[in-house]
Amino acid sequence: MSETEQTPIDFYFDFSSPYGYLMSERIDALAAQYGRKVRWHPILLGIVFQSTGSRPPADGISSKGKYMAHDFHRSARHMGIPYNPPSRFPLPTQNAARAFYWLHSQDCALARQFAHAAYRAFFVDDLDISSPETVLQIAGKIGIDREALATALQSPEIKARLKDEVEQALQIGVFGSPHVVIDGEAFFGADRLPQIEHWLKTGGF
Amino acid sequence: MSETEQTPIDFYFDFSSPYGYLMSERIDALAAQYGRKVRWHPILLGIVFQSTGSRPPADGISSKGKYMAHDFHRSARHMGIPYNPPSRFPLPTQNAARAFYWLHSQDCALARQFAHAAYRAFFVDDLDISSPETVLQIAGKIGIDREALATALQSPEIKARLKDEVEQALQIGVFGSPHVVIDGEAFFGADRLPQIEHWLKTGGF
Repeated sequence: MSETEQTPIDFYFDFSSPYGYLMSERIDALAAQYGRKVRWHPILLGIVFQSTGSRPPADGISSKGKYMAHDFHRSARHMGIPYNPPSRFPLPTQNAARAFYWLHSQDCALARQFAHAAYRAFFVDDLDISSPETVLQIAGKIGIDREALATALQSPEIKARLKDEVEQALQIGVFGSPHVVIDGEAFFGADRLPQIEHWLKTGGF
Repeated sequence: MSETEQTPIDFYFDFSSPYGYLMSERIDALAAQYGRKVRWHPILLGIVFQSTGSRPPADGISSKGKYMAHDFHRSARHMGIPYNPPSRFPLPTQNAARAFYWLHSQDCALARQFAHAAYRAFFVDDLDISSPETVLQIAGKIGIDREALATALQSPEIKARLKDEVEQALQIGVFGSPHVVIDGEAFFGADRLPQIEHWLKTGGF
């Protein structure tokens, strides 16, 4: 199969997921090395956990919660990615996700730029990205029309689009964030980047 | 600190944990590259989950269960480690763990050899290592006195030793398998091997 015929990689994530953030900082460049594009799909982990009967990874387990908070930070240092633990975590992310899909329907490069900005606003600058006002500020800084976006965040079409994306993610077996799919092969977690690279290099192992 | 003064690395695992098995095939050689020894601590995840209020990683979540079964196998291939999905999984592992601690009280190299043999019996040869008879067979093959071991498996001292090890693991915050501790720094999962190597190389990052 020539590069131009290759299907894109799908990247599912929640804007409140630290490991999703780490994946977001690496997946495009890694895919590009192997002539691949990436389709980004923000989803809502709250709905995913509810639908699958799962719980957040460290829910109620204090030793695991402490470990994970420490591991988020250490994993970021290991990967050379800036990270500051947010003061409020996790957060509802439907506004950021809706903004992404609205932008994506017009300009997918701009949507990608917004996604990076929203993730960094949360995990570097400690901004509360659950707030529509903050989402508008982040968007405004990269030249997006704030008023048009404010309207879009309330539009039934955009709400339905996000709902559909979460539904489709559940249908293909997404249970957490980040979840990456390459030609039907699923990889869960930022720590699967070495396997993703191995897979792209060899076409499956 | 000179190499001879360095404290050993602690490696906590359950004999029924696939990622524990993957770690067991790599941790000694990696530690040795940096002049470190490893202390192995088989524990019982069932008791750890009960005490922490946790559940097995994919408990009741079918998409995650399917993914994990696939990931065990793929992770083994990625690491170049033989792996055959056991027909019965997970298994109770108190007999294997007790055998380990009894051997360890006499000959720690032999205990290590037994641990490798028990893990490979389960994850390569599909033997039911929950059975005392199978544990005795595995031990017999590497020259261990089967009758003495059969007696030890029932001894109150060895049962108490395993109980103490699980209790100590819980006290230092172990919540799953594999769990590796280097100078107070905890690493959970076989996928933390790159971070463990980075840590050993740099003395912390």
